[in-house]
Amino acid sequence: MLDTRHSAVIQERIDNKTKPLGALGQLETTAHQLALIQSQGQKEAVTHIALTQPTMLLFAGDHGIAKEGVSIAPSEVTQQMVLNFLAGGAAINQFCRMNNINLKVIDCGILKPVETDHPDYIVQRLGAGTHNLAHKAAMSQQQVAEGLELGGSIAKQTIAAGCNVLMFGEMGIANTSSSSALLSALSTTDAAYCVGKGTGISDAQLGNKISLIRQGVARYNESGEPGPLRALAELGGFEIVQMVGAFLAASDQRVPVLVDGFIVSIAAYIATLLKPEARDVMIFAHRSEEQGHQKVLALLEAQPMLDLGLRLGEGTGAALAYPLLRASVEFYNHMASFADAGVTV
Amino acid sequence: MLDTRHSAVIQERIDNKTKPLGALGQLETTAHQLALIQSQGQKEAVTHIALTQPTMLLFAGDHGIAKEGVSIAPSEVTQQMVLNFLAGGAAINQFCRMNNINLKVIDCGILKPVETDHPDYIVQRLGAGTHNLAHKAAMSQQQVAEGLELGGSIAKQTIAAGCNVLMFGEMGIANTSSSSALLSALSTTDAAYCVGKGTGISDAQLGNKISLIRQGVARYNESGEPGPLRALAELGGFEIVQMVGAFLAASDQRVPVLVDGFIVSIAAYIATLLKPEARDVMIFAHRSEEQGHQKVLALLEAQPMLDLGLRLGEGTGAALAYPLLRASVEFYNHMASFADAGVTV
Repeated sequence: MLDTRHSAVIQERIDNKTKPLGALGQLETTAHQLALIQSQGQKEAVTHIALTQPTMLLFAGDHGIAKEGVSIAPSEVTQQMVLNFLAGGAAINQFCRMNNINLKVIDCGILKPVETDHPDYIVQRLGAGTHNLAHKAAMSQQQVAEGLELGGSIAKQTIAAGCNVLMFGEMGIANTSSSSALLSALSTTDAAYCVGKGTGISDAQLGNKISLIRQGVARYNESGEPGPLRALAELGGFEIVQMVGAFLAASDQRVPVLVDGFIVSIAAYIATLLKPEARDVMIFAHRSEEQGHQKVLALLEAQPMLDLGLRLGEGTGAALAYPLLRASVEFYNHMASFADAGVTV
Repeated sequence: MLDTRHSAVIQERIDNKTKPLGALGQLETTAHQLALIQSQGQKEAVTHIALTQPTMLLFAGDHGIAKEGVSIAPSEVTQQMVLNFLAGGAAINQFCRMNNINLKVIDCGILKPVETDHPDYIVQRLGAGTHNLAHKAAMSQQQVAEGLELGGSIAKQTIAAGCNVLMFGEMGIANTSSSSALLSALSTTDAAYCVGKGTGISDAQLGNKISLIRQGVARYNESGEPGPLRALAELGGFEIVQMVGAFLAASDQRVPVLVDGFIVSIAAYIATLLKPEARDVMIFAHRSEEQGHQKVLALLEAQPMLDLGLRLGEGTGAALAYPLLRASVEFYNHMASFADAGVTV
């Protein structure tokens, strides 16, 4: 857990800014959280929050369940979108560029590897797509362990290179199915309440998606002890496992993570099951349209900053919320106090 | 009204971007609106939206009703905050600086003028604070006419200097009282439903605020024909009148305005009563905590982009939403289409 000894001083600093008490709403709680994180181990509370080399790690992976038609698009689109990310043409590229966020794309196990020497492309494949979670374990326990390690390692490397604020994004056709299955299994909630239309499937496809997820969750429930690591093996995705590892590493290093939508939030939730204090470094970017996301956010007791009807993934919600993080920092660092400005309290 | 002949082409352009249909939510409607505004009078729909010299016009004025104790702060704070704006210490300064938004502060009639030759300070005073609206007309019809003219004029000058996206902010102790009175009068809704705690008054102060506003609204109802110009004279504020003029001018020049919280939204609403097509250039930044704001937003059929629990004013909500406007532009201008990127539809 975070040491809260500097909390009162931080709050006093915020309350003395030239504005009515609490008038900056969620920016105030965000500034408080960031200041507290950066004050850990310091003798005094920081008077300046610094955000350095903000970086989006975009984890990509393919899912065996995609062949069941649970998504609007075929698995090939995962690789096509990875190429689009590397060429700078996707939504996430625009939002990272405009906010000076570094973007790295990580192949966690898409169907067909990409041949490229792009400097922002990182290959740490766990396989060529997961198995179909409706019928068998998506991956082995060994792949889970390796994925946690690899995800943690890329987060640590990024931090070692000077980044002190992370965002994670994801790409993987059918990864809302995997996420819904993980949510259903870990929250013991029927799949019908955990599944949404993803990026836009029909009602018939939705019914099918629910049935397939129920099958996978039933297998998880019947085949062994419950728990997040087994759930990841039975129902997870390569990109989700690596994100869990990245969340754990960020928490170890006390680096805040701006959490994107449904799939990233599931990884965040699993990280908190493995290590409750991982929650301390999470700041929630947005509330997506996906039904399951409302449930994960409630489990995480999270109040996201944006609610724009987004349902794209890629980390877009986090990149869009990043300016609000910066605004929280700017007011904390630079606003005058009542005394500075000679304003009557 | 906007000519919608290019609407279908604009929507097709948005729908062909490499993302599921509608997956960027409110950013898509925002991009559509901006593209449509900039396509007016063009042979073809614009393929690039340009935002140039974004400018925040911050209108300040004092209110006679402040002496009744309807606010947490005395009227002197209006001038103190104006000085804070000019010194760069307020919240709005930080948010404008980080987003490269020009900030101009306009004295529309604060109690005591400021002596300064600051280049971003504009003096267009209608008096030294309004009369106390609880007891008599806040200003004359002539002051209303002059205020509309002056507000329009500063907006037109700003546009003539190269700005094509405006934001308005406000400062004026007790201006939520004036705004609530205007809302109550123009929507024929009892003051109790239009009044909030402003920046944080007590329950007793709130009861008093409601009574005083009821008195003012009763006088408006009894003393002549209903209508927005008379309402402005009876119940308005100097900064509110000038903002109405600025909205009308922006609409004439087809320049989009990112609309801030309660007080700015009241000015926006009055502008639409005077000229319905003024609504076409409005984009709504945020939903504030103030009760009356919910009602004005409903009257304007507005869906704001942010809901962060802000209740500060100054234009802070608009400045904070500006990056989302930019994000809408960036995706419209630069995202690859399915064909460009070779992504399977």
